[in-house]
Amino acid sequence: MSLNSKPSLSFWYDFASTYSYVAAMRIEDMAKVSGVTVNWKPFLLGPVFAAQGLADSPFNIYPIKGANMWRDMARICERENIPLQRPGIFPANSVLAAKLAMVGGVDGWIAGFSRAVYTANFAHNQDISKSETLIEILTSMGLNPQEVFERANGPEGAGLRQQTEDAIKNGVFGAPSFQVGAELFWGNDRLEHAIDWALSHR
Amino acid sequence: MSLNSKPSLSFWYDFASTYSYVAAMRIEDMAKVSGVTVNWKPFLLGPVFAAQGLADSPFNIYPIKGANMWRDMARICERENIPLQRPGIFPANSVLAAKLAMVGGVDGWIAGFSRAVYTANFAHNQDISKSETLIEILTSMGLNPQEVFERANGPEGAGLRQQTEDAIKNGVFGAPSFQVGAELFWGNDRLEHAIDWALSHR
Repeated sequence: MSLNSKPSLSFWYDFASTYSYVAAMRIEDMAKVSGVTVNWKPFLLGPVFAAQGLADSPFNIYPIKGANMWRDMARICERENIPLQRPGIFPANSVLAAKLAMVGGVDGWIAGFSRAVYTANFAHNQDISKSETLIEILTSMGLNPQEVFERANGPEGAGLRQQTEDAIKNGVFGAPSFQVGAELFWGNDRLEHAIDWALSHR
Repeated sequence: MSLNSKPSLSFWYDFASTYSYVAAMRIEDMAKVSGVTVNWKPFLLGPVFAAQGLADSPFNIYPIKGANMWRDMARICERENIPLQRPGIFPANSVLAAKLAMVGGVDGWIAGFSRAVYTANFAHNQDISKSETLIEILTSMGLNPQEVFERANGPEGAGLRQQTEDAIKNGVFGAPSFQVGAELFWGNDRLEHAIDWALSHR
């Protein structure tokens, strides 16, 4: 970034990712307080994991790590006062939700929509792969679900594929990731570091 | 732990582990300030990873993750004012150093010895698998290297095998890990959580 430009960071996330949920619920307030602009960048972890030779979530491939992750999530959500109910399906199929979010990126409602999808998945144990779940969210936001779905199934939603390729090109290997210029931070616990970096390197 | 007992936590670490280095350099001061006793528990990551079907450090198996780890380590060490020089050999063979540390656990010099081994590995790029490196450390601490080596090669050092099995039994799957009763915290970034837990659950 050029000197004195407004500090910003890209927030790379997948709706199926547990720690991305925590980051999504924290990031907007933290960014506002510090004056950092957040670029919400949904992508798909599936191809990112596949590029590393992983056919499933590492938390499923390594069950002992997965068990500790859920316990850690419970502790963190209690610390952060974020509701948590372990979803029946993990990881959720997040493709449709992410395509809809791409439309929200164009129209400016991506942050609120993303938080609502995460809440459905991780606080209300709703199946976010289902159209009904997503229609309900869009409706509650005062949007026209039919129009948004049409655009999600058109070129705007198709941009998700390119965005996932961009994630891989930028070195993203997991979610959440935070990017400031060429600097890549991985994990909810690096959000503070990424914000500090955005403030001190512009 | 019983009510009103002195709060304590177990610090599980391997001398080859990067984030354990950071934790080892931070833990004593943090524990002192908060009044938590630290039980230093060296173990071997090799058998722990093998139990998960991993034949090497995950940072070597997943190179893109490894590259980001080294960058993350550089940023964290700068934030924490901890020296860092990427070692030529990674992961180092940490068996001998860990056996010596077991003797230090009996005699009470394990914390200082462990910090010195980590500093040799991650700040001075010394080969901690070599006797010379470890003799130098023991000598600088005013200890008798020959006596300590003899004990490390006897039953006291052999306790490392049991301690590694204990780690696995307690659910340890990576390092550093912090344990308070049955509660297991993974990663340097969970040290604060573990200390908070030790203080609020006794």
